[in-house]
Amino acid sequence: MRGDVFAMKCPSRTVMKHMTSTWGVLTLIALKSGTLRFSELRRKVNGVSERMLTQTLQQLEGDRLLTRRSYPVVPPHVEYTLTDLGQEAAAHVECLANWVEDHMPQLAAMPEQA
Amino acid sequence: MRGDVFAMKCPSRTVMKHMTSTWGVLTLIALKSGTLRFSELRRKVNGVSERMLTQTLQQLEGDRLLTRRSYPVVPPHVEYTLTDLGQEAAAHVECLANWVEDHMPQLAAMPEQA
Repeated sequence: MRGDVFAMKCPSRTVMKHMTSTWGVLTLIALKSGTLRFSELRRKVNGVSERMLTQTLQQLEGDRLLTRRSYPVVPPHVEYTLTDLGQEAAAHVECLANWVEDHMPQLAAMPEQA
Repeated sequence: MRGDVFAMKCPSRTVMKHMTSTWGVLTLIALKSGTLRFSELRRKVNGVSERMLTQTLQQLEGDRLLTRRSYPVVPPHVEYTLTDLGQEAAAHVECLANWVEDHMPQLAAMPEQA
């Protein structure tokens, strides 16, 4: 049964927020083509801080969109992989991101406001 | 020509942010079925403050996703209508929102963090 996205307490708002935050979108798209280590992800997602990437990965893991696998080696080796649900989510946000990019000439973005 | 969504200065990040913010998503979906006045929108988008709705509408107007029409009457009468581009954008975010709602049983959202 579908909830009401307009309802203030609808829990889907939280998942949407994680998936569609700047770093959420880019992390999902980056992992779409396969497993990546933290350092690889950080390089791919241009401009993300270590702290923000960690937080984004924790949120997406909590939403069951990805799994984290850590190997007990020195230096630490941690890998992130999308779940089946995460692959679906990534396809949706990529579709949206592609639409935005394809329409940028018509979309006149205002400068970001604080 | 498509830009690089991973590039830090990609302007599409700003439009994506406007479209996929909680209030951006709900405003686009609310206007999908037709023109609404500010007060009607505010009632429909449960929980939005007057200030946040004003800011959201300004951002979406700046992105050319909606138009604002104000009538010189007392009390003021202001109407918002999606552009053709806005209708497409609304269809995309609604599709994403529906996917999230349909998968909420599998998606275990963590409590929101400040």
